[in-house]
Amino acid sequence: MESTKRLINAVIFDVDGVFTTGQFLYTTDGKFAKVFGAHDNDGIKLLSKHVNICAVSADKRGWEITKKRIADDMGLRLEQVSEGERLNWLKSNFDLSQSIFMGDSMHDAEIFPLFAYSIAPANAFPTAREKASFVTKANAGDGAVAEACLHIIEKFFGPLDINNI
Amino acid sequence: MESTKRLINAVIFDVDGVFTTGQFLYTTDGKFAKVFGAHDNDGIKLLSKHVNICAVSADKRGWEITKKRIADDMGLRLEQVSEGERLNWLKSNFDLSQSIFMGDSMHDAEIFPLFAYSIAPANAFPTAREKASFVTKANAGDGAVAEACLHIIEKFFGPLDINNI
Amino acid sequence: MESTKRLINAVIFDVDGVFTTGQFLYTTDGKFAKVFGAHDNDGIKLLSKHVNICAVSADKRGWEITKKRIADDMGLRLEQVSEGERLNWLKSNFDLSQSIFMGDSMHDAEIFPLFAYSIAPANAFPTAREKASFVTKANAGDGAVAEACLHIIEKFFGPLDINNI
Amino acid sequence: MESTKRLINAVIFDVDGVFTTGQFLYTTDGKFAKVFGAHDNDGIKLLSKHVNICAVSADKRGWEITKKRIADDMGLRLEQVSEGERLNWLKSNFDLSQSIFMGDSMHDAEIFPLFAYSIAPANAFPTAREKASFVTKANAGDGAVAEACLHIIEKFFGPLDINNI
Repeated sequence: MESTKRLINAVIFDVDGVFTTGQFLYTTDGKFAKVFGAHDNDGIKLLSKHVNICAVSADKRGWEITKKRIADDMGLRLEQVSEGERLNWLKSNFDLSQSIFMGDSMHDAEIFPLFAYSIAPANAFPTAREKASFVTKANAGDGAVAEACLHIIEKFFGPLDINNI
Repeated sequence: MESTKRLINAVIFDVDGVFTTGQFLYTTDGKFAKVFGAHDNDGIKLLSKHVNICAVSADKRGWEITKKRIADDMGLRLEQVSEGERLNWLKSNFDLSQSIFMGDSMHDAEIFPLFAYSIAPANAFPTAREKASFVTKANAGDGAVAEACLHIIEKFFGPLDINNI
Repeated sequence: MESTKRLINAVIFDVDGVFTTGQFLYTTDGKFAKVFGAHDNDGIKLLSKHVNICAVSADKRGWEITKKRIADDMGLRLEQVSEGERLNWLKSNFDLSQSIFMGDSMHDAEIFPLFAYSIAPANAFPTAREKASFVTKANAGDGAVAEACLHIIEKFFGPLDINNI
Repeated sequence: MESTKRLINAVIFDVDGVFTTGQFLYTTDGKFAKVFGAHDNDGIKLLSKHVNICAVSADKRGWEITKKRIADDMGLRLEQVSEGERLNWLKSNFDLSQSIFMGDSMHDAEIFPLFAYSIAPANAFPTAREKASFVTKANAGDGAVAEACLHIIEKFFGPLDINNI
């Protein structure tokens, strides 16, 4: 598996609709809360032993919420990149042909073909599900990232020994 | 498709149970939060290139919450119209025979036949699902509006080129 | 249908897991919020034209939350009755043989047989689903009460004319 | 059934993803709320008549939220034990061969085989569902614990008389 392993240098995750249910709780003060799933942190810990991980989000209004969970509590590298700038930013920071991207939106679907491999949650936007290399059985915010992490490990970094984590 | 295109001048969306899950989070202070989905804003941006869009809500207690999301953050025209006044208000503001309406309630179901086309989310009230011209596969707050927008574009404004958004 | 109509004098609804998803949002301050569905208020308005409606709840810690939605905003009669006192309270306030009860818990299931008719939401506790006269297709907090109201009207108060509400 | 009964001295429950949906609501202040289900408290009350019950959680940031629901409001013994320490802590506090464990994570799955019996919610992590002795039909936060409690009573403590609770 060693030859396959070297092909993947980075895994990049969109945040909303991937780490979260994609939903926003609004109060009279505006965007108030996002809903993050539990298993995802376990999967990320396992995957981070094999490859660099980066999370990107275009959500400016919800940035502080995203930052609390993804950067502060999960300890992931997190970058705010607008949808218009995303492709250029990704190209200048990663070798896309050796990277995996997980996203859920119609805009994510457009850039899926540029990556070595792409993943969409079960409840992603229809075009994202169609264009992704792999669609998780789990919904976003209910284990989709964790499932994706295990899938990536098994496919690109050899069999996962669940008894020796 | 040009002849079909001219038939539709406006798309009107109910808010609760269409842009939201239809659920209200109550605290000891009363109605506190609503849950909005993520993909819908993407769909609205695409549809707004083709046709006028308007959102209507009868919810007075949750008005400020609705306004924050729909008017302030998504930039849509938003009107507060009670259910009793809705039909007259719609008739005096739109040519219903050239308009599309998306709603989820039993009251929405009653006015569906007056429009050129009507859409209900997958988890709308049963009579709304029965009377709608089209029922989305997605639930409200989980992509129903986005799916409806793409459906309207493809049906009334020619094929959607997802690679040239 | 007139003879059937006179058999039902009251419809009594449990609140948590019937009008709500049954879930409690907890913060560091304890029980913070409950999630109420949207269609239910429409159904209750229709049913209230035919029969007396009463809501009962045993939840003391969440009482103020329940009161805000059910009594203040929906305008329903609401009583706080503990589970141990519920049966006696119901017997002394209603003729159970001429009443309908909708509930979701294992304790509700025990008293279902005492009523003229009983209803459980799709995601009620298993024994409640087994013992209920009717189980809604909708989950609690996602239209279960609205569906129950229409079912009661059609079964006990003659056909529902959805076009003349 | 008496001989079977004596085999089980304790039932230990993980909290997040078992008593809760596994999801965390984040605001700009960080982890803000967890979502607990309604039927579970009923099930726990029944099971506690037969056997000792203990809840364990590794979640430090959400500890005060967990404590409010599980210890303060439900009255259960609750212990904070990190995932790395969990197995040793469990071994020194319980005879695992006479205990039942209910959990949802990939880490829980690893220790399932050490217990007399293990249970996972329907939406547990895939490896937990595979390794559990029993998987509930209900999702976590929507009746999984209640279903597990009734299953344990019927399997290890004789038939449940639902009419004499």
